[in-house]
Amino acid sequence: MAADYDLKVWRVNVRTQTVTKEPVPASWERLGGRGLLARILLDEVEPTCEPLGQKSKLVFAPGLLVGHMLSASDRLSVGAKSPMSGGFRESNSGGSTGLHMTSMGIKALILEDRPTDPAFWTLYLSLQEVRWSRADDLVGVGVYETAPRLLAEYGNKVAISLLGPGGENQLGTAGIQNLDKERIPGRINARGGLGAVMGSKRLKAIVFNDAGGQKPPIKDPEGFKKAQKAYTQAVLAHPVSQTYRDYGTAANVLVCDALGALPTRNFSSGTFEQAESVSGEHMRDLLLKRGGESNTSHACMAGCTIRCSNIFGGDDGKTIVSPLEYETIGLLGPNLGIADLDVIGRMNWQINDIGLDTIDVGAALGVACDAGLMTWGDSARALELIDEIRRNTPVGRILGMGATMAGKVLGIERVPATKGIAMSAYDPRAIKGTGVTFATSTQGGDHTSGLTLRVKIDHRDPKGQVAASRTAQINIAGYDTLGACIMSGFGYATSPDAVRDLLNARYGWNMGDDALQVLGKETIRLEREFNRRAGFTKAHDRMPEWMTREALPPYNVVFDVPQDEMDNIFSDLD
Amino acid sequence: MAADYDLKVWRVNVRTQTVTKEPVPASWERLGGRGLLARILLDEVEPTCEPLGQKSKLVFAPGLLVGHMLSASDRLSVGAKSPMSGGFRESNSGGSTGLHMTSMGIKALILEDRPTDPAFWTLYLSLQEVRWSRADDLVGVGVYETAPRLLAEYGNKVAISLLGPGGENQLGTAGIQNLDKERIPGRINARGGLGAVMGSKRLKAIVFNDAGGQKPPIKDPEGFKKAQKAYTQAVLAHPVSQTYRDYGTAANVLVCDALGALPTRNFSSGTFEQAESVSGEHMRDLLLKRGGESNTSHACMAGCTIRCSNIFGGDDGKTIVSPLEYETIGLLGPNLGIADLDVIGRMNWQINDIGLDTIDVGAALGVACDAGLMTWGDSARALELIDEIRRNTPVGRILGMGATMAGKVLGIERVPATKGIAMSAYDPRAIKGTGVTFATSTQGGDHTSGLTLRVKIDHRDPKGQVAASRTAQINIAGYDTLGACIMSGFGYATSPDAVRDLLNARYGWNMGDDALQVLGKETIRLEREFNRRAGFTKAHDRMPEWMTREALPPYNVVFDVPQDEMDNIFSDLD
Repeated sequence: MAADYDLKVWRVNVRTQTVTKEPVPASWERLGGRGLLARILLDEVEPTCEPLGQKSKLVFAPGLLVGHMLSASDRLSVGAKSPMSGGFRESNSGGSTGLHMTSMGIKALILEDRPTDPAFWTLYLSLQEVRWSRADDLVGVGVYETAPRLLAEYGNKVAISLLGPGGENQLGTAGIQNLDKERIPGRINARGGLGAVMGSKRLKAIVFNDAGGQKPPIKDPEGFKKAQKAYTQAVLAHPVSQTYRDYGTAANVLVCDALGALPTRNFSSGTFEQAESVSGEHMRDLLLKRGGESNTSHACMAGCTIRCSNIFGGDDGKTIVSPLEYETIGLLGPNLGIADLDVIGRMNWQINDIGLDTIDVGAALGVACDAGLMTWGDSARALELIDEIRRNTPVGRILGMGATMAGKVLGIERVPATKGIAMSAYDPRAIKGTGVTFATSTQGGDHTSGLTLRVKIDHRDPKGQVAASRTAQINIAGYDTLGACIMSGFGYATSPDAVRDLLNARYGWNMGDDALQVLGKETIRLEREFNRRAGFTKAHDRMPEWMTREALPPYNVVFDVPQDEMDNIFSDLD
Repeated sequence: MAADYDLKVWRVNVRTQTVTKEPVPASWERLGGRGLLARILLDEVEPTCEPLGQKSKLVFAPGLLVGHMLSASDRLSVGAKSPMSGGFRESNSGGSTGLHMTSMGIKALILEDRPTDPAFWTLYLSLQEVRWSRADDLVGVGVYETAPRLLAEYGNKVAISLLGPGGENQLGTAGIQNLDKERIPGRINARGGLGAVMGSKRLKAIVFNDAGGQKPPIKDPEGFKKAQKAYTQAVLAHPVSQTYRDYGTAANVLVCDALGALPTRNFSSGTFEQAESVSGEHMRDLLLKRGGESNTSHACMAGCTIRCSNIFGGDDGKTIVSPLEYETIGLLGPNLGIADLDVIGRMNWQINDIGLDTIDVGAALGVACDAGLMTWGDSARALELIDEIRRNTPVGRILGMGATMAGKVLGIERVPATKGIAMSAYDPRAIKGTGVTFATSTQGGDHTSGLTLRVKIDHRDPKGQVAASRTAQINIAGYDTLGACIMSGFGYATSPDAVRDLLNARYGWNMGDDALQVLGKETIRLEREFNRRAGFTKAHDRMPEWMTREALPPYNVVFDVPQDEMDNIFSDLD
């Protein structure tokens, strides 16, 4: 090794354009990813501040286990006070940014203040140099064109976090995109408006160059290797890993349809008559037949053995979009009455290119259908509306602000959202544990906060759902703090010592069997404290009223988990 | 007298179209108007319910002193959970509805449930009959045409509370209009979206016919007469009564301009270079010169001696609008860079006809200017945008939802609003006590919750403002509970025994010298409790961040009343 691995907090003032490197405070050392974001926000951000204002901060933090090519565990967490929910927000993504940050010794990157001038900038960070460049020529340019232009300028080896026009326009659904192994900007910190926060900081892109960096040190290399092996074997052995490798997350289409939880026509039904044609099985057949650039099993991060991602190619063998995920299919497909994967893929590409969250945009389009701006199944109109978002017209802004705002402005009560965040493609009336997550999570309608789909439970029975959601929420908060993907749970669930052993070997800590739960609980505790200071109470942990009243076909279920049970889900943490 | 005066709660189920008359619960007896609304909402409405949903209720309640032609004291309070703020909302208005309700013995009219069918109805209430009529022919019709049509059908003696198209479309700025003595629907329960709530109940109008009704009984007629006389003399003797009689509330234009608090170009300045041309003085000159239907001093309620209202006529002597008030002039005039009273009057008429709150629409137009949808001073464009609201287009809906929503959708941070409610025409940086009211009131940016303009204090000094606001808020909550106009304070302030004596004489109570404060504090206590259950905390009692940072010309003041002082303004009531 050249020099000692030097882990620091990098602090960027976007107004004065200064970057300082600070020692890591002791209370931040044992956290990473989502948990670290919660700690930093609580320590440094005024909870009642304007999310897009001068006092707001945007923080990037790789998880605790990032940097070792551990399968499904190199994720980047980005967080801020959400302009959508007004509360704590973390979104994580695969791609290469987390890995670069760790190699560069960046424990957390904190972006603060706000320029007085509206110009956009590209910030280049390396161990040797910090450079600010005007990004005038990139303003309004989609991510698929912006990324190669930046790669041409900064070299093919960099990692990039960048915005599309949606982030520049500070739309609530704007995310932050990152490059995958193939340097396609398809890995997105999608939810909660983090792209809008980055837009308010006037950064079009952050380029990370880890040249001269190094892998983080491992205290006990042998122990780490052993634990890694056990974990990797467990991941590979899990039957659902294989399912996702073959079909991607789109495997969930028919699962959710069977459960009556596939969001159809703005969550008015849980089953879609053409579910087969948007299924993972059909997608796999298509891709295998089409060949060319299509790929049924693609890794979003180097070293991942699950490879649940895909490259969705057209009849001509050329890529339509990569990846095409279940939640996107659900919200842009059945939720809009659209049954054609090619069309869904093209909508996905457009929304990605603008730099937005497909889930909240899809939900907003569903609301737009109920408001008469579009008829069910009219994908040409859907593409027109997406183009309105790109052109930043008033209609486009209504939709680009997401389902909650669209519902308010368009006067539609049937909005599938909690805490201002659209529900991902799991109707909570038919998968009630996930409904509990949507209601009680600090982050609103987000399955990645605690999906209960694979829990062995009667998903339509209100009993036991709070416990199922609690377990899922704590586990996932733990994974998000490790930098581990939700899929890593396939490994950790059947290799229960792995988290403990990996952390202890990596850091020389002495964590116990409950390492994952300790991290998860601490993360949720910090998030809840931030939200409380921001003005959240139990009154915000509510499902939309209409979902407690409108029965969902085909099983005619309403959401009926008792509110008082939900209100106490985390009372031990407060 | 025919029968005994029979005071009841009338409960209307708008889905089943049934009306029941119930005894007044003991805990409601000593409240009226705003205080009674707070009690009813707390007793009957789930605080986390959807404001436009099935569980929401809309309540009409005249004040405690309504029914005796007491000057400035026949006001009607209407309340509900606000679709704008998500919290308690009361708006009161003059006109004849409160008087009719009292004559009919209606302590409170509670509208509940929600029809499943979208058709609109007219509800006719009299002592002899309840009648529901389809209002298909009135849908989309403005209030100025709807009112005479209903009068033709139900007779000239009825009182009417009605909606314009804005209320039908459930716009957040929609109010409920009432007839004045001349049967013009210019008295509006304007703020907080109560018209949207009535629209959700599918009522285009409620017609009250008090035929066969009677004046409420007075326990001690001599005592009442004596107290009434003292109060009336005090009102007449107050110098500001005379000012308002001569100039209307428009007298405040030059007062606020001098204080540097006249909202100009979306609250970017507190002084307007053409303030003279929109002043009360100029208006008076115009009206005296023009003659015809113009009237500089008009009473919005029978028996009022202040007569601060006016009829604003054009060059041709024909009415442009009635009344034209300071807050409307401020928000539609200087706030948009418009300096022509005739144009402001025409905008006012249009907004009234659609049935909206001029303050929040004016503030939304100011935000629209900052968003580039209109240039300052372009009144033709302003009228076009108002027409977009009437036509319920997407742009119209953005603006018709009010300034807060417009700011969010259009991406404008500089929104002059608290708790989702646009500030009325008193820039809180230059009248800081009113700023404290905007921040801490249960109802958001509303001067009628506690205006400190006439308090003898240095309005730009942060010291003493919390106390000034507290006093104003408690007094006004008391007046609103009596059914007394904010102007009645001119009388009550210099006739301190009047409230006690009037109440005790009217009801045979034994209230003390602090009668007004007792009512005011109880009202605020109930409202705060409702808001707390609805999810409000101190974190919501905040001024917009930009107002604490952006200095307001000409005195270059920011809002700097200490937050911790504001946080404790009502801690004794919680």
